[in-house]
Amino acid sequence: MLQQFKVPETDAIRVPLAALETTVQRIFAHLGVGENEATLAAEVLVNADLRGVDSHGVSNQLNSYIKGYGDGSINPLPNWKIVRESSGTATIDCDRGLGLMLAPKAMDIAISKAKEVGIGMVTMRQGRHLGMAAYHAMMALKHDMIGICMTAPGPLVLPTFGRKARLGTNPIAFAAPTKHEPAFVLDMATSVIAANKIGLARRLGTLMEPGWVAEADGTPIMEPADPPPPLPDSRSRYSDRILPLGSTRELGSHKGYGLGVMVEIFCAVLSGAQPSTLGEADDIEHFVGAINVDAFTPIEEFKVMMDNFMRVLKETPPAPEHERVLVAGQPEAEMELDRRKNGIPLHREVIKFLHDTCAEMRIEWTLTPN
Amino acid sequence: MLQQFKVPETDAIRVPLAALETTVQRIFAHLGVGENEATLAAEVLVNADLRGVDSHGVSNQLNSYIKGYGDGSINPLPNWKIVRESSGTATIDCDRGLGLMLAPKAMDIAISKAKEVGIGMVTMRQGRHLGMAAYHAMMALKHDMIGICMTAPGPLVLPTFGRKARLGTNPIAFAAPTKHEPAFVLDMATSVIAANKIGLARRLGTLMEPGWVAEADGTPIMEPADPPPPLPDSRSRYSDRILPLGSTRELGSHKGYGLGVMVEIFCAVLSGAQPSTLGEADDIEHFVGAINVDAFTPIEEFKVMMDNFMRVLKETPPAPEHERVLVAGQPEAEMELDRRKNGIPLHREVIKFLHDTCAEMRIEWTLTPN
Repeated sequence: MLQQFKVPETDAIRVPLAALETTVQRIFAHLGVGENEATLAAEVLVNADLRGVDSHGVSNQLNSYIKGYGDGSINPLPNWKIVRESSGTATIDCDRGLGLMLAPKAMDIAISKAKEVGIGMVTMRQGRHLGMAAYHAMMALKHDMIGICMTAPGPLVLPTFGRKARLGTNPIAFAAPTKHEPAFVLDMATSVIAANKIGLARRLGTLMEPGWVAEADGTPIMEPADPPPPLPDSRSRYSDRILPLGSTRELGSHKGYGLGVMVEIFCAVLSGAQPSTLGEADDIEHFVGAINVDAFTPIEEFKVMMDNFMRVLKETPPAPEHERVLVAGQPEAEMELDRRKNGIPLHREVIKFLHDTCAEMRIEWTLTPN
Repeated sequence: MLQQFKVPETDAIRVPLAALETTVQRIFAHLGVGENEATLAAEVLVNADLRGVDSHGVSNQLNSYIKGYGDGSINPLPNWKIVRESSGTATIDCDRGLGLMLAPKAMDIAISKAKEVGIGMVTMRQGRHLGMAAYHAMMALKHDMIGICMTAPGPLVLPTFGRKARLGTNPIAFAAPTKHEPAFVLDMATSVIAANKIGLARRLGTLMEPGWVAEADGTPIMEPADPPPPLPDSRSRYSDRILPLGSTRELGSHKGYGLGVMVEIFCAVLSGAQPSTLGEADDIEHFVGAINVDAFTPIEEFKVMMDNFMRVLKETPPAPEHERVLVAGQPEAEMELDRRKNGIPLHREVIKFLHDTCAEMRIEWTLTPN
């Protein structure tokens, strides 16, 4: 197979969803993950590509998962267990398993508790990378519930006025059901940018915006600046000098900083782990929650009201030079429609990486014509 | 009494905590509020002054409460009731009662549910002003719980790319217990500034910072600008053109906007009310939650870890020109120590307003020597 393979000439080519999921499933299975877990992991990972969140999809994450299983830092067959539990809560020890397939199990537990007592919340310690937080939060939607997901992936972000990273990009995902409109799905880092945004600016040849990162002494850089060349580990020298959402004290960076601490408390301290600035570098803690809407208000009325709310937001008259006002989750839903139909675009370097990986693992190549 | 009273010559004078609470309690009682409710309202309101959150204390809010009771928009004797309930949840109709004294009752319910099932959450519809959200969240602390409080006070904030306000400043308060360190207490608008910040800049003779507000057409103002003269109702022409936290799309305003929508869903849509951009102008919806830490992890370990976390944050080496890195809740705790001991500073105009109010209501004047 490998001999016949030609790297595509165009920058990105579209591959079918099902074929990509199957390929990724086989790679996880080859890495020692059980069949069902590999299927789930492939679905979660490819779902990010499907929704246009390429930063958390195949092209950006699969390589690091392969490395993690290879060097033993990720456990392919974790003996995860509930270590503490009440009617509405649970704490899980992930035994170094990937959040990608353990967070859905935690979310199932949260949903089942929310059916009983109205709310379910589960913290997860000793975990590994979560994947796209929105996937797990959105699991609540088909149960007519609100879903929440957070993760604390380790220090990259400066506290306001500080010169040393103390917090992760600590994202918050929140998904609420609607009737006909796309669900409201917020999935946001509590830092001003996600960690891979600097590398992305470099690849696209654009400047870093004012307010993204700080000088080595902690002073926010408030002018557009060239993204630096990558370090050997593909990070940049600004990777652990990202500013909290709000950028400066005057613009409210103490709020992004405060939200980051809150996420760290939900994920790490509440699960009995250390906050990431104090703990093991490999450990990543997570938090999921489900809220049964009907426990508060009739679900049908809620969904109709959500539709009205989403519509009034989208119909807000736009400012000059902007075509429309968006709502969180709407661009991703539009992207998903397109990619389900027309395939998922992968950069040719990613196609080559997948092909080389499949060849090495002796996995059948079905993504592109040979 | 009135004849003898002299407006203080200094801008601010310190008044004792207990005397201020008593005076405010008597004012609420005069307005028709029951004795116990008046005592609670006074405690909540003066607690904001005590913690240095003057925007939500006596000087900034009492006058609007007096007006609201006077014109009938606030109900002094609300027949509030639970309209829907499950083991972990409740929905309250506030019957136009002030959130100041109803949110503590909702929080009591949330705490009692969290004792039973690990978490308790209560939404509140048809309410009036909440006061300082942190007060209600902090009620959870003495029960060794995490407290949450949010409120959706009506459209002042633009969606990203929009030219018409659709969201309130929609604050989120989050309080988590510690052992010896001050509790972590975040209380933040999801907009870049609180609504009264423009008037404050005007009074202080400072400029509005870039990124606070937008032009009438929705374009963010990214240069320092003079605060405008006040409108007749003491608002400013920028009051309903506040930008979401993040200010511009490049700096992440879609995140502040998304958080604002989330708060609106928790408070308004989940309580069966309309989001404030669609609903009655006077209605303000709230949300409170309590999380029983010990349901997740032993409370003693949690508190010790919180102390470690708070210390490592505070000990972060500071950036140039900054003395120290702060943690949310710490400046307020320091302020409270000082004001408990030395009294609460009130501007002489506020003293005069209180004195005139007491004279009119025939309430004994004990705040300053006559």
